[in-house]
Amino acid sequence: MERLLVPGGGRTYPVLVGTGLLDELGAILAREGISGRMAVFADEAVYALFGERMRKALPEASFATVPAGEAAKTIREAERLWGILAEGGFGRRDVAISVGGGATSDLVGFVAATYHRGMPVVHVPTTLLSQVDASVGGKTAIDHPLAKNLVGAFHAPHLVVADLDTLGTLPARERWCGLAEVVKAALIADADLVALLEERLEALAQGEAVLLEPVVARAIRIKAEVVAADEFDHGRRQVLNFGHTLGHALETATGFDRLRHGEAVVLGMRAAVHLSRRLGRLDSKEAERVLALLTRFPLPDVVLPSPEAVLCASRRDKKGAGAFVTIGPIGEARVEVVEDALLFDALETLYEGAANR
Amino acid sequence: MERLLVPGGGRTYPVLVGTGLLDELGAILAREGISGRMAVFADEAVYALFGERMRKALPEASFATVPAGEAAKTIREAERLWGILAEGGFGRRDVAISVGGGATSDLVGFVAATYHRGMPVVHVPTTLLSQVDASVGGKTAIDHPLAKNLVGAFHAPHLVVADLDTLGTLPARERWCGLAEVVKAALIADADLVALLEERLEALAQGEAVLLEPVVARAIRIKAEVVAADEFDHGRRQVLNFGHTLGHALETATGFDRLRHGEAVVLGMRAAVHLSRRLGRLDSKEAERVLALLTRFPLPDVVLPSPEAVLCASRRDKKGAGAFVTIGPIGEARVEVVEDALLFDALETLYEGAANR
Repeated sequence: MERLLVPGGGRTYPVLVGTGLLDELGAILAREGISGRMAVFADEAVYALFGERMRKALPEASFATVPAGEAAKTIREAERLWGILAEGGFGRRDVAISVGGGATSDLVGFVAATYHRGMPVVHVPTTLLSQVDASVGGKTAIDHPLAKNLVGAFHAPHLVVADLDTLGTLPARERWCGLAEVVKAALIADADLVALLEERLEALAQGEAVLLEPVVARAIRIKAEVVAADEFDHGRRQVLNFGHTLGHALETATGFDRLRHGEAVVLGMRAAVHLSRRLGRLDSKEAERVLALLTRFPLPDVVLPSPEAVLCASRRDKKGAGAFVTIGPIGEARVEVVEDALLFDALETLYEGAANR
Repeated sequence: MERLLVPGGGRTYPVLVGTGLLDELGAILAREGISGRMAVFADEAVYALFGERMRKALPEASFATVPAGEAAKTIREAERLWGILAEGGFGRRDVAISVGGGATSDLVGFVAATYHRGMPVVHVPTTLLSQVDASVGGKTAIDHPLAKNLVGAFHAPHLVVADLDTLGTLPARERWCGLAEVVKAALIADADLVALLEERLEALAQGEAVLLEPVVARAIRIKAEVVAADEFDHGRRQVLNFGHTLGHALETATGFDRLRHGEAVVLGMRAAVHLSRRLGRLDSKEAERVLALLTRFPLPDVVLPSPEAVLCASRRDKKGAGAFVTIGPIGEARVEVVEDALLFDALETLYEGAANR
């Protein structure tokens, strides 16, 4: 097991990465000094798999399920969870525990951030994506009918318990999505991790805990270091958006139902690599190397919307310029002002890629 | 005009107390370095009185109204305001401005705290109660069907503009409610202010700005000093709850429709003074002096619920003990553990008082 200390919320909190942690949850909470009554909120699909084991590990806790995945992130669902906490008589020194993917930790983190103006939250991420990304850093959010993630708060958890055993039951597509964020972390901050991923990408996608443990821990450490430098997202933290500016726009332009977040980010990173090369941040050889890694990700057969539609969805148009994350050399990133015309050209390379596939 | 600097949110923010400020709002925001697009949310009753003047003072701002008073503090209303901000294209560097009483600043403060994980908020409190209490300190909240103020966040404003001219249009009952919090501030921290209030209570209740300015500024300074010592309400800040433990319970037990908050606090303070004397914190002469001041507050003709019902509503019963704020000598307060049986006795004195009235 690895135990990382992540700064946030004016303190540091432990992130545990290892195997067999779910069954030890009661002992782990006690050892980490987390006391109070526990209200567990689990993704209903995850609860079906691990609920019984978790009840054994936390015999005193109260349990409730939330809708699987993104459907949980509604204002109605937040209202229901605040009600469950109130009816259970939970106070602001008690503890909310999220069990599930990024949507679950986003929702439960937000509910905890705002219940009696803030109660402690512990995340038990059960997807690779949430282990390396959503559960660390303190960002929480729910959706509004008008926009995703419109409503949220910064609320650093008191503990994160990433049990790699839970990843074996994930669909392969979900593991690939998580690996997209691992690749992103490597590309912006850790050239050695890039080399490791080049060597073992497909093996890691199989979900074997022994291979994943050091990789997940390194990705978390990268995120923790960036977040520590800029907890409230005023500048440096933007490098975590590498591949995400165009990735989000692709998700929006495809209606959020054809591409998973991680898949959109893979495409966004490919476009961003082209742009980084064009700006001279990466040389041709490096760019080819990164593109080779990114094209190993399986992607669904999706007809991409036009570059115009994608740029429009990113709320930028070809007349302007804005902040964009580029990489180069491999393992380093910066935020720079980029003309939208260059984004347009970078998006066009995705069509060439599609034609060549 | 007085300009106080209040610490909060890792910075300090100015609180301006004076007259004619509403018409100068544009110039004041510019002078205080607050820029960005402005979204004004005003209590509809306040907007009817001052809307036109505010539009003149802030010609570029967008305006929307919220239901008058406590009816604004719903999850539905928060959802509507998030939507207004999203539709207007407001970003997290733009500014929300609340105009109204404590309910308005609670709602708008919460919406600002959670919109894109936090945008700046400016409060323009237009009731005496919100000028001396709600708009300073950074607490925000909305109600949940199961409990008042269940959902909220700490979100220090960037500026508070308390224009005393707005108080002249308040019903006298509202001014008395505000004075209740001024008396509370004086009793816990400022014996000189107690003497001033003894001298001028009825004159202050007339709402004349020239008399109110120094009194409001002193009350705000007291609150600011307490909050500075304990922004996130872990201990010292509890002294601000003087009179509120039993006051809240009285509000709850009377269904929130017969006693205003300030009136319930006056009764709560009277009971707390009896208790403070019984514990030897106040001598008889001091207690009589404070009770004489408190009985000058006009109260509605309400049949008080039984002490049992009030204690039950406070979620305490006679078998337990809990934290309670006592005063003594006048101008000093402490939080101490008090047996519920003593609270019961203190509540009973309110019935004697009612019989004597």
